[in-house]
Amino acid sequence: MTLFDPGTEDAPTERTTSEPAFLQALLDAEAGLTRAQSSLGLAPAGAADAVTAAAVASSFDVRDLARRSRAGGNPVIPLVADLTAAVGAEHGPYVHRGATSQDVLDSALMLVAARSLDAMAGDLARTEEVLARLAVAHRDTVMPGRTLTQHAVPTTFGLKAAGWRSLILDARDRLRSVRDALPVQLGGAAGTLAAFESYGSAEPLTLVEVYAHELGLAAPQLPWHVLRSPVADLAGALAFTAGALGKIAADVLVLSRTEIGELAEGAGGGSSAMPHKANPVRSTLVAAAARRAPGLAATLYGSMAAEDERPAGAWHAEWATLRELLRVVGGAARDTAELAEGLVVRPEVMRAHLSLTGGAIVSERLSAELSGRLGRARAKELLATASRRAASDGRDLGAVLADVPELEEADVSVPELMDPARYTGAAGALVDRALTRR
Amino acid sequence: MTLFDPGTEDAPTERTTSEPAFLQALLDAEAGLTRAQSSLGLAPAGAADAVTAAAVASSFDVRDLARRSRAGGNPVIPLVADLTAAVGAEHGPYVHRGATSQDVLDSALMLVAARSLDAMAGDLARTEEVLARLAVAHRDTVMPGRTLTQHAVPTTFGLKAAGWRSLILDARDRLRSVRDALPVQLGGAAGTLAAFESYGSAEPLTLVEVYAHELGLAAPQLPWHVLRSPVADLAGALAFTAGALGKIAADVLVLSRTEIGELAEGAGGGSSAMPHKANPVRSTLVAAAARRAPGLAATLYGSMAAEDERPAGAWHAEWATLRELLRVVGGAARDTAELAEGLVVRPEVMRAHLSLTGGAIVSERLSAELSGRLGRARAKELLATASRRAASDGRDLGAVLADVPELEEADVSVPELMDPARYTGAAGALVDRALTRR
Amino acid sequence: MTLFDPGTEDAPTERTTSEPAFLQALLDAEAGLTRAQSSLGLAPAGAADAVTAAAVASSFDVRDLARRSRAGGNPVIPLVADLTAAVGAEHGPYVHRGATSQDVLDSALMLVAARSLDAMAGDLARTEEVLARLAVAHRDTVMPGRTLTQHAVPTTFGLKAAGWRSLILDARDRLRSVRDALPVQLGGAAGTLAAFESYGSAEPLTLVEVYAHELGLAAPQLPWHVLRSPVADLAGALAFTAGALGKIAADVLVLSRTEIGELAEGAGGGSSAMPHKANPVRSTLVAAAARRAPGLAATLYGSMAAEDERPAGAWHAEWATLRELLRVVGGAARDTAELAEGLVVRPEVMRAHLSLTGGAIVSERLSAELSGRLGRARAKELLATASRRAASDGRDLGAVLADVPELEEADVSVPELMDPARYTGAAGALVDRALTRR
Amino acid sequence: MTLFDPGTEDAPTERTTSEPAFLQALLDAEAGLTRAQSSLGLAPAGAADAVTAAAVASSFDVRDLARRSRAGGNPVIPLVADLTAAVGAEHGPYVHRGATSQDVLDSALMLVAARSLDAMAGDLARTEEVLARLAVAHRDTVMPGRTLTQHAVPTTFGLKAAGWRSLILDARDRLRSVRDALPVQLGGAAGTLAAFESYGSAEPLTLVEVYAHELGLAAPQLPWHVLRSPVADLAGALAFTAGALGKIAADVLVLSRTEIGELAEGAGGGSSAMPHKANPVRSTLVAAAARRAPGLAATLYGSMAAEDERPAGAWHAEWATLRELLRVVGGAARDTAELAEGLVVRPEVMRAHLSLTGGAIVSERLSAELSGRLGRARAKELLATASRRAASDGRDLGAVLADVPELEEADVSVPELMDPARYTGAAGALVDRALTRR
Repeated sequence: MTLFDPGTEDAPTERTTSEPAFLQALLDAEAGLTRAQSSLGLAPAGAADAVTAAAVASSFDVRDLARRSRAGGNPVIPLVADLTAAVGAEHGPYVHRGATSQDVLDSALMLVAARSLDAMAGDLARTEEVLARLAVAHRDTVMPGRTLTQHAVPTTFGLKAAGWRSLILDARDRLRSVRDALPVQLGGAAGTLAAFESYGSAEPLTLVEVYAHELGLAAPQLPWHVLRSPVADLAGALAFTAGALGKIAADVLVLSRTEIGELAEGAGGGSSAMPHKANPVRSTLVAAAARRAPGLAATLYGSMAAEDERPAGAWHAEWATLRELLRVVGGAARDTAELAEGLVVRPEVMRAHLSLTGGAIVSERLSAELSGRLGRARAKELLATASRRAASDGRDLGAVLADVPELEEADVSVPELMDPARYTGAAGALVDRALTRR
Repeated sequence: MTLFDPGTEDAPTERTTSEPAFLQALLDAEAGLTRAQSSLGLAPAGAADAVTAAAVASSFDVRDLARRSRAGGNPVIPLVADLTAAVGAEHGPYVHRGATSQDVLDSALMLVAARSLDAMAGDLARTEEVLARLAVAHRDTVMPGRTLTQHAVPTTFGLKAAGWRSLILDARDRLRSVRDALPVQLGGAAGTLAAFESYGSAEPLTLVEVYAHELGLAAPQLPWHVLRSPVADLAGALAFTAGALGKIAADVLVLSRTEIGELAEGAGGGSSAMPHKANPVRSTLVAAAARRAPGLAATLYGSMAAEDERPAGAWHAEWATLRELLRVVGGAARDTAELAEGLVVRPEVMRAHLSLTGGAIVSERLSAELSGRLGRARAKELLATASRRAASDGRDLGAVLADVPELEEADVSVPELMDPARYTGAAGALVDRALTRR
Repeated sequence: MTLFDPGTEDAPTERTTSEPAFLQALLDAEAGLTRAQSSLGLAPAGAADAVTAAAVASSFDVRDLARRSRAGGNPVIPLVADLTAAVGAEHGPYVHRGATSQDVLDSALMLVAARSLDAMAGDLARTEEVLARLAVAHRDTVMPGRTLTQHAVPTTFGLKAAGWRSLILDARDRLRSVRDALPVQLGGAAGTLAAFESYGSAEPLTLVEVYAHELGLAAPQLPWHVLRSPVADLAGALAFTAGALGKIAADVLVLSRTEIGELAEGAGGGSSAMPHKANPVRSTLVAAAARRAPGLAATLYGSMAAEDERPAGAWHAEWATLRELLRVVGGAARDTAELAEGLVVRPEVMRAHLSLTGGAIVSERLSAELSGRLGRARAKELLATASRRAASDGRDLGAVLADVPELEEADVSVPELMDPARYTGAAGALVDRALTRR
Repeated sequence: MTLFDPGTEDAPTERTTSEPAFLQALLDAEAGLTRAQSSLGLAPAGAADAVTAAAVASSFDVRDLARRSRAGGNPVIPLVADLTAAVGAEHGPYVHRGATSQDVLDSALMLVAARSLDAMAGDLARTEEVLARLAVAHRDTVMPGRTLTQHAVPTTFGLKAAGWRSLILDARDRLRSVRDALPVQLGGAAGTLAAFESYGSAEPLTLVEVYAHELGLAAPQLPWHVLRSPVADLAGALAFTAGALGKIAADVLVLSRTEIGELAEGAGGGSSAMPHKANPVRSTLVAAAARRAPGLAATLYGSMAAEDERPAGAWHAEWATLRELLRVVGGAARDTAELAEGLVVRPEVMRAHLSLTGGAIVSERLSAELSGRLGRARAKELLATASRRAASDGRDLGAVLADVPELEEADVSVPELMDPARYTGAAGALVDRALTRR
């Protein structure tokens, strides 16, 4: 809940990354460890039950834990103390047995990440579905293609929607692949699992497997306390997703400008001062998210260069940064879904804009086709003359060309050649093919 | 309050950047505007009183405002509604009169920034004072100078402390200069102040001056809604400060390593698993902050390229980013103050380390001084022979040189020449001069 | 010279940051040091002359130096060898005497930075002059103010140009202040200046002053080998400048869109495929620069956290990054100057666009003024009714209001009230005031 | 070739990203297109031969092309002119037929990227092999595990080397997967492939396939001119790789400190001033690269939010940034290979350091094992007493415990319990398992 950031407010990932959610993930990581040890005979079943029963976030005082986390620089130290006390004298010794703070904190971060990625997957799926429908519906809706802000040649809104969808699918695939590999962390003080042996584990590698199973995360080949691939992979996939969503927002922002109006957000945001305004608020918030994600991801990539068996700073820089990145991207996924679902498409405006350049939007086609029929040199000369005349007379190029007898003689249908709707190339075929991807 | 970030927890800037603090700043910005208008005869005195009386954060529901901020993409719209209602029918029309959301939001951000910079100034001053004392106390405490991780030539801890202090002063100066220039924002819907004229203001530029006075901020020459110098300047000064603090942390982390132990944090953090550990927790958290600030600052610099009279995204990307940057740097300022105040310096360990290279730490001096007395060629030859002998015999270079009659004949006092404490150059003079800076 | 980056190609800063320019700066730093020592009697005058004469970049083999720089990780080591050889046996010993590689490399970087900032100052000044003229010429040229991509209320192009200019002046001021403080680096192996004493300098602090004078740079209070304020300040001022230029580019890109066309680049770039296109190439390249600068600046800020007396990595990360940042921003300064000088302004198009919202662009004014005359409640009701009628009849709001007898009775001149040109508030006064800044 | 960056100098990726290499890639992209068209009957075989024969970088003037690239903002426009001229009148019309600049530039960037990734793969493979050998050789070489700069519990150098290797394999896998997917770009002016139809192509999607085959790149499902997944994926994989290499460098830098000396670079770099120094130069340069990559990657992720069918700035920001990122990471891959191959490991120093904490390095084990034998309370009491005595007497904890009869009675072998070499947990098993990964 924050006044500073309407883009993350109330999104599913706001809940999965909240203080109580993180606290619960820390508790889940502790309880899962005791259960894993119990299932291997390293702790009594009663301990597993007791820790699991005690591991409920609402029983703990987040504010107090946060304050006490300052002494040791992480929240696990005070949490272990409180959880041990809550579990009681008999089973307390089985809390956090053999583990180090990082085992629990990293495992909890992965739980938070997993739950956040799961939460945003739904929003990406909603978006993907809407975009697929739009691509089908507007497969042949012609609009100006724009390059470097200028009308270039025609394209279709279907192709644009199909392209947006392919980015969403790219993001989905990268997030899924990262999600499925999110590992538990278990290594003990310096990653050798030695303390678990001292506490009786004959096969600590098996303990890691069982622990992973308890938490529903992957079992890593090595403790990754200073091998930060999972965090870096999250950084990359999340920055990618922000960029993918940002592309959609960037296009909607352009196309819903007052002068363009080919698109509109269904529920534009109002303004206190200007009652007439319908601002593209969803796109605006997504665009903001796309600006914020890369810097956050950069910090996480930078933390890979982590010295020793636990670095003094690189690790600590990850926690809040990863949380923020999950939130920002999750919020943008939610806003893009709302944006897509409400998007108003105005084919007639798109169509009208095709004539804004007085026919120049098909000039590429004219060059190509007239060259084929009249020869390159003659075509060039003819077009140059016609363009000059069109400019000087303030007429459309098509109108000027219609007066050129040479074209009629060459059996050139000027109206057909000038029709932007007949110059969309493989747009339809591309849409069809893109929609086969699931 | 957060479990994700012990470095920002409970610092003065956590309070100045909290949700209630931002809400209060937004309310202050609204109330200040009505008062400014009242003092110019544009609103009744009663309205100024009524708005000021109503503008108390605890009367508003932050959670509800945050949720309603989603519709228009900013929290001012619902806040104006609630504040207007709270003020009542008579004076309600004077709430937010002529203003746009950005006027209030930006002014509030500047209030938050100002209060945060003020809050961290105290921590920087504490640090500066301790470092000045350390520089004086250890003006002549010799220690190894280290370059690219290797002992190079001697330096003093006093010079190191003086250098740290100069960075703190550099940061202070940059923050102060930015602080003093933080401006109110007032421009109306698109920065022309037109609505204020419609509401009767004959000289809207005067209104800006009075508004600035009301909020204790500077009056800008132009509305800066899309001229984001103040935010960019904050980004730069805060990233600078994080770097300055990070330098101190980086040094403490190296010098408190188990093998080095020349410094120690007074109150090292413990470990649940390893009772003997005294971790440099404060330095660790500061180092983490120094890793996070640059990416956040980069986002803010990126937002300068803001299109139109209010950009769709660049502006929105600033709010939470600036808040986080203020928090991260403020937290680090607090932690550095604690670090400095508790720092344990061990001159005897520093001294002992000077002999670790077997005399090589003064080899630069030997080259220079023997060249002067024996000629460059002879000095080089003699030193090469002696170094080889020292290496092969496992002796110190000084011991080998003491056996060279040629040096005695040349009146060279080998013990003096080999004494690292006599090879600190201008370290003392530099400390003295640096301390004259206030 | 690079095919990868048309934005930096052939700009003044391409020359000041070239390999020969850096080599010359390194040589200047060496020669300046020998001269400084000579002027204090620490080296013969002949040595100063000989080193200065030899210190000509074209005499050295950059490629060979670059390759040999790998062994020690910096180019100064091989350069000192070659320069010493070039100077000859007699004066060779006075090359680099007492210095460390960092002294020379950092001083050379500061020379490169100084020369680059000087080079880009001219382009910023050109831009500022053009913008001042535009602000005057278009002081009263009315155009739509746009917020969140939508028409909001009228503004003037003069105010926009004055705002751009104020950003240029802000950038200029920050660059100047950084430029004037760029210091020489001189500290010897670990920043104590000890070797200079061994070579006979009684007052090494004076040597620093004289050295600064020789190079035309400032004399630092302390050696700053690990106190990286100058580099961080460059990062900030350059990122700021990129953002300032980026704002101008962002506006031009929007306003030169095919559908908008209120501005055009004088010499738009062509397209091989589409002969009609006149792309806003200068703005495009400036926009690209504004995207690149923040990440580069972030790296430089990150390098402040530099351990020891010379860090293993943080320092080395600065060189190419600072070079690239100087180039990118210098190129953008040049492109913005070309952009400004060629900018085509189309007041008639701006004017025409004011009617695109059917009068809604002055709705803020209507609310304000009618409230004053009819009372708030009645005004609101009347406007809501009229807006609905305008929408349903497809008429302008002004036309509908002209039919409302109540307004005529209230002595409201609807045409005047609806005229966007009469609703520009303090735009003119703001321009006038902004232009007083020099 | 650059004096600014010894880390990239002379690496394989310096050659694959040079100006001639990019020019050749641009020419390859042009020639491949004509060949693809020829093989589909869209151009005469002679044209394919002529363009291929002419497409040799050394025939073109890079400097002149770079300068002329400024007009249109990309180097393809002048290159097409020169290539067309070189091909001659007959086949010139088949140069760049139907294509847009972005088709050629993006395809060329992908060729440069592919060649660069291939070039760095060898260096990563070298590193991986050396690390595998080190992991085997030092499977049981015990050393202190360090967390937050302090000795924690023992680990092995084999486990550290295996961890480094796993990061290299992670990087290799990510780079491979990105490499294999690098696509050609072909879409024509706005991504519809329309011009290719005008020039006679009945199935432009087939043309894309054939073009991909000609260039040895993948065929994309959609033209990706504004769907920048390939560039974002490169950004992520390269930043990941930089971080992986940076982890190794960070460890080497710590462990080769003068006071630690557990590792050394085989060929440390010298210093002009201090003949004794053997600096860890390779690690230093790699650490610098790891600091630079995240900011560059952030810029590339930021460019995903690209408006329209070709964005005005986002695309242009990619070219030099991607080049620099390829160079920086490729240079670091080369330097890490050199570092690994020359790495000196000193097991005896590692061993000696295990006693630096006077036995505390196994305190975690003592707690665990004595609790099991004496009960938790008694064990805690006994250890506290012994630790106090050890501290007050200045003795090792093991010596104090050896005097405790209770332990002998409990059949506890103190020497065995205190032996750090017997407290390495599953380190050996982890190494064995990690080495099964290929």
